[in-house]
Amino acid sequence: MDSVERFPVQRVTRESKNDIEDIVTKELPLTIILNNIELTTLLCSPTDLKYLAVGFLVSEGLLKGKDDIRKIVVDERRGVVRVETVGGKEFAPDVLSKRLITSGCGRGGSFYSAADVQGQTKIKSEMTISSTAVFTLVREFQHRSQVYRTTGGVHSAALCDTGSILLFNEDIGRHNAIDKIFGECILRDISVDDRIIITSGRVSSEILLKVIKRNIPILVSKSAPTDLGVRLANDLGVTLVGFVRGERMNVYSNGWRVTTSGKQGH
Amino acid sequence: MDSVERFPVQRVTRESKNDIEDIVTKELPLTIILNNIELTTLLCSPTDLKYLAVGFLVSEGLLKGKDDIRKIVVDERRGVVRVETVGGKEFAPDVLSKRLITSGCGRGGSFYSAADVQGQTKIKSEMTISSTAVFTLVREFQHRSQVYRTTGGVHSAALCDTGSILLFNEDIGRHNAIDKIFGECILRDISVDDRIIITSGRVSSEILLKVIKRNIPILVSKSAPTDLGVRLANDLGVTLVGFVRGERMNVYSNGWRVTTSGKQGH
Repeated sequence: MDSVERFPVQRVTRESKNDIEDIVTKELPLTIILNNIELTTLLCSPTDLKYLAVGFLVSEGLLKGKDDIRKIVVDERRGVVRVETVGGKEFAPDVLSKRLITSGCGRGGSFYSAADVQGQTKIKSEMTISSTAVFTLVREFQHRSQVYRTTGGVHSAALCDTGSILLFNEDIGRHNAIDKIFGECILRDISVDDRIIITSGRVSSEILLKVIKRNIPILVSKSAPTDLGVRLANDLGVTLVGFVRGERMNVYSNGWRVTTSGKQGH
Repeated sequence: MDSVERFPVQRVTRESKNDIEDIVTKELPLTIILNNIELTTLLCSPTDLKYLAVGFLVSEGLLKGKDDIRKIVVDERRGVVRVETVGGKEFAPDVLSKRLITSGCGRGGSFYSAADVQGQTKIKSEMTISSTAVFTLVREFQHRSQVYRTTGGVHSAALCDTGSILLFNEDIGRHNAIDKIFGECILRDISVDDRIIITSGRVSSEILLKVIKRNIPILVSKSAPTDLGVRLANDLGVTLVGFVRGERMNVYSNGWRVTTSGKQGH
């Protein structure tokens, strides 16, 4: 399915209306069914639905990896992805409802409980990256986003090493764009060790936790973080970079992973 | 609670790192409890929580209006809003779980079922607005957003008549900003008849349905709509305006409500 569609639109100024055609980004309600249990409906761009479903399930802790998956069936027309696990495990209704109320929501999260955050291991990676490399990656990221982003209505995400963009994806939801990246990594056996995630979107606590769960040491955003995002990044060992604009950026936490060419020894 | 906080940040260029202080927007996980049942946890900006809770509950169809509310208790520190209805109605567990899985999520929605959309009455309002008035309102909206939006990480929403902004609010979530507006209208008995909503955010189907439920005839966005947003606006009689930039905009549906000073009789 194409991710955009042409629509008749009126271009309006003070004086005039002109009938034109414009490109509008598509939105698909995608229902994810795990072992015959309807989990949630995501609003997403209708591309890479398999990656999205797997990335989502892994982010939510409902799948561990590729070996857990017995079958994935995508019905794009009806907006349904069915995933069956190897064990065909049935979730206890109360565990499931507890997860569902909060997880999968753009807005809510069970993972805000102290216990859940404490359960996260601190990122151990010793990797570093020069500020120059970050600027180069973000410029390339921006370029790719502009190529794809004809409609103005989507978010982009990328997986990178210090030298180049390895995977790029986009979605109307900033969470989904990142889940598509992780889903692709899982299904194509692409390592995320010592990798960097770049996102076009804001970094709220949910985004931070998504990235921590995949053990990513460096998260770069073109936008702003929230205080909770910064606190989690600090506590859990993630280098959080925000507001990358041209050759300037803000480093909010664990700045030792970002090196500069200056002499001040930072 | 302030909606922003100062954080130590490193401002990094190619050559240097400088320790500065920067303002970061706050994020609060807010749990909404209706008649002792924990509904959902929203991630929001920690302001106007009472408005947010009421707007959310009305948007989700769990409250009809002010007369339904017996008591609202906000515990800002713990991030909890308790709402009690007049009847103290208990929701049947299955109805509740069905709603919860999908509603309240930035991503999902039970309202995508055909039945639910068909249940929506088409907007009847005969109101019109000149394109010049739209440009003036959006300029004022933009000005207010810039004043408040020191951190770059929030969305704004406003309720307007054809001449001026009546209510303005902001939140890290574009849904929340609109719910805060509607919550304020309900608690302060402010009519939404023949009113306009302006949003800084993208117009997905969820946003459209939120606005339709309050019978708003004109929705103006600085950003892009999705195809589902456009289709719903068409079908349900909403005038959807997007991409307002300076003195130009796109009208995606029901363009007869937007008039111009030209002679072409549109």
